[in-house]
Amino acid sequence: MQGRGSLSARPILIAIIGFGKIAHDQHVPAIRDNASFQLVATVDPGEACLPDVPHFPTIEDLLGSDCEVDAIAICTPPQIRQRIAQTAIMAGKHVLLEKPPCATLAEIAALEQSAQDHAISLFTAWHSRFAAGVAPAKAWLADKQIRSVKIDWREDVRVWHPGQTWIWDAGGFGVFDPGINALSIATEILPRPLLLRRGALQFPANCDAPVSGQIELEDSGGMPVALNLDFLQTGPQTWDIAVETDGGTLILQQGGAVMHTPEGTHHGEDCEYPAIYRHFADAIRQGRCDVDIAPLRLVADAFLRCRFERVEPFYE
Amino acid sequence: MQGRGSLSARPILIAIIGFGKIAHDQHVPAIRDNASFQLVATVDPGEACLPDVPHFPTIEDLLGSDCEVDAIAICTPPQIRQRIAQTAIMAGKHVLLEKPPCATLAEIAALEQSAQDHAISLFTAWHSRFAAGVAPAKAWLADKQIRSVKIDWREDVRVWHPGQTWIWDAGGFGVFDPGINALSIATEILPRPLLLRRGALQFPANCDAPVSGQIELEDSGGMPVALNLDFLQTGPQTWDIAVETDGGTLILQQGGAVMHTPEGTHHGEDCEYPAIYRHFADAIRQGRCDVDIAPLRLVADAFLRCRFERVEPFYE
Repeated sequence: MQGRGSLSARPILIAIIGFGKIAHDQHVPAIRDNASFQLVATVDPGEACLPDVPHFPTIEDLLGSDCEVDAIAICTPPQIRQRIAQTAIMAGKHVLLEKPPCATLAEIAALEQSAQDHAISLFTAWHSRFAAGVAPAKAWLADKQIRSVKIDWREDVRVWHPGQTWIWDAGGFGVFDPGINALSIATEILPRPLLLRRGALQFPANCDAPVSGQIELEDSGGMPVALNLDFLQTGPQTWDIAVETDGGTLILQQGGAVMHTPEGTHHGEDCEYPAIYRHFADAIRQGRCDVDIAPLRLVADAFLRCRFERVEPFYE
Repeated sequence: MQGRGSLSARPILIAIIGFGKIAHDQHVPAIRDNASFQLVATVDPGEACLPDVPHFPTIEDLLGSDCEVDAIAICTPPQIRQRIAQTAIMAGKHVLLEKPPCATLAEIAALEQSAQDHAISLFTAWHSRFAAGVAPAKAWLADKQIRSVKIDWREDVRVWHPGQTWIWDAGGFGVFDPGINALSIATEILPRPLLLRRGALQFPANCDAPVSGQIELEDSGGMPVALNLDFLQTGPQTWDIAVETDGGTLILQQGGAVMHTPEGTHHGEDCEYPAIYRHFADAIRQGRCDVDIAPLRLVADAFLRCRFERVEPFYE
C-alpha cells in the first residue's frame, strides 16, 4: 500500500464482505458516489455480485490475491463478523462494521484492542445515527429539561427481512436487529447514559431470538425511557422516538428521518450511508478509531436482565 | 471525614449493606480481622444484624445519621446494587461490590464513570480470584503453551443457596451466580481475552434464569475453552478448571483453592475475603479504582449468544 502513495492523495481502495441486501442497496451506491473510495472487490460465498468488480469467495482469497485493498466494509450476518474483522486487522486493513458490530461484547472489545495494536481505523457504523433528523434533534434537546422518552419500533419482519433466517438464530438479535437502531439514536441524542432496569422479551417457540419486547430504562438521573419493540407489525410501520421536555415534545419519526418540534417539522434527504462513508474516510485519514458499544451493550443487558416468555412459533 | 484525619493514619470506617449469608459468613470476619477497617454499621431492611454494631434499614438512613463512614461494602442481591452504589458514591464513600458487581453492564459502566468523577475507590471484588491456587496457577501457566481449557462448575443449588429466590429472577443469573466465579478465575489466569462462540442455556419453565449451560469459548488466538455449568449436581460437587499445556496438565480444584501440576499439589488456606479487604484498603489508600467487567461481560455474552431451552420447573 505504501508503494501506492499516501491515502490522502488517492482514493481508498475498499472491498465489501458479505453481499446481501444492505450491501447492494446502500453500501455500493454510497461508495460509488464518494470520490474518497474506489470499490475494488466483493467477497461472498455466493456468485459474483457486480459485473465490473473482482469477486472472491473468502477474505483469505482476497488477501492472497494481487488485488490491492486498503479497507474492508463488513456486511455479513453478525455471528461471523469478528473472525473476518480480526483477519482484516491483522493484514493491516481499515475496517467498517455494519451494525451490530459483533455478536458479543467480548468480540468487539477484542477487535478494538487489536485495531489499536495494529494502528488501523475501526469504525462501528450505526447508520441510524446519520438519519437526517438525529443531529437536529440532539441540538434541539441540548438546552431542554428532558422528562421522559417513549420509543416505539414496530415493523413487519416479513416485509423488511425476507429470507434472513440468521436473524432468528442465537446471536441474530431478532427484533433487536431493528431495535438496536432505536438504541443507537437514543444513546446519541440523550445527554446521559441509559440503564436498563427491567422488561420482558418474547421468544417464538421455534426461534433463539426475540420477536417482541417491552423494556424499561432510565438515564443516570432517573429520567424514564420506555422501549416497545415488535417484529410482527402489519399495516402502518412505526419507528418513532418521542421526547417530553420542558420546551414541549420532540418526535423523531421514520427511523430518525423526520423531526417534529413545537417550532415545526424538519425533513431531510436520506443521507445515512453517504454520511457513514464520509465519516469512515475522515477516520482513516485522521488515523483514528471510532468504536461505540453503547447500543450493543444495552441489547446484551436486555438479554441479561429481562424476563423470557415463550410465544407461538414464527414461520415466514 | 476530613475532620477525623487522613485515612492513612486511622482505620477505614466501613458499613455492610445487605446482610445475608455472605455478609455474615465472610465479610464480617474479614473486616474484624483487618486492622485497616472498623465495622461501624450494618444496613438491611431486616432486623439488626450484630448486637454491637449500629443498624439502619436503608443507606439513606445511614447517610442521614451521625454515624461516620468512609466506605461501603455492598452484599445485596445484584438487581439493586447500582442504585445503592450510586448513592454511596455521590456521598463520597468508597465502594466494594460483591460479585457480580451489577445486574447489567451499563450499570457498572455508569458507576465506574461516577467513581472517577467523584474521585472515590470503586472495587469489583471477584472473590474467587483470591483463592489460594489462583496466583500460583497464573504463574505456572505464564511460560507454557496452552492447548485447551475445560471448566466444570457443578453444584447443588439447594445446598449452597437455600431460600435465595432472587437467584431465579431476571437479573439473578441462575447458574451463572457460581459460574461467574469460574469465569473470574479463567479471565485471571489465561493470558489472552476470551470470546464466547456458541452454547446452550437451559431455563426451568418457572424461572427467568438458567439452571445449566454448555458453552464454547476460545481465546483470541483460537485456543478452545469448554464451560459446563450445572446447578442440580447431587453427590460430589465440582468446581474444577483443567488446563492442557505443553508442560502437562494443570488442574485447579475446589473453586481455585487447590492446584495440581505435574510437579505436585499446592494447598493453601482459605484466604479469599481477607485478601479482598487487604486489596480494598490498598485501593482506598492509593486513591485508585479497581473495576474489571470481563467476567460479567462473558455472562452477558452468554445470554446474548446462546440458544435457550425450556426444561422442567425448579422447586426448592
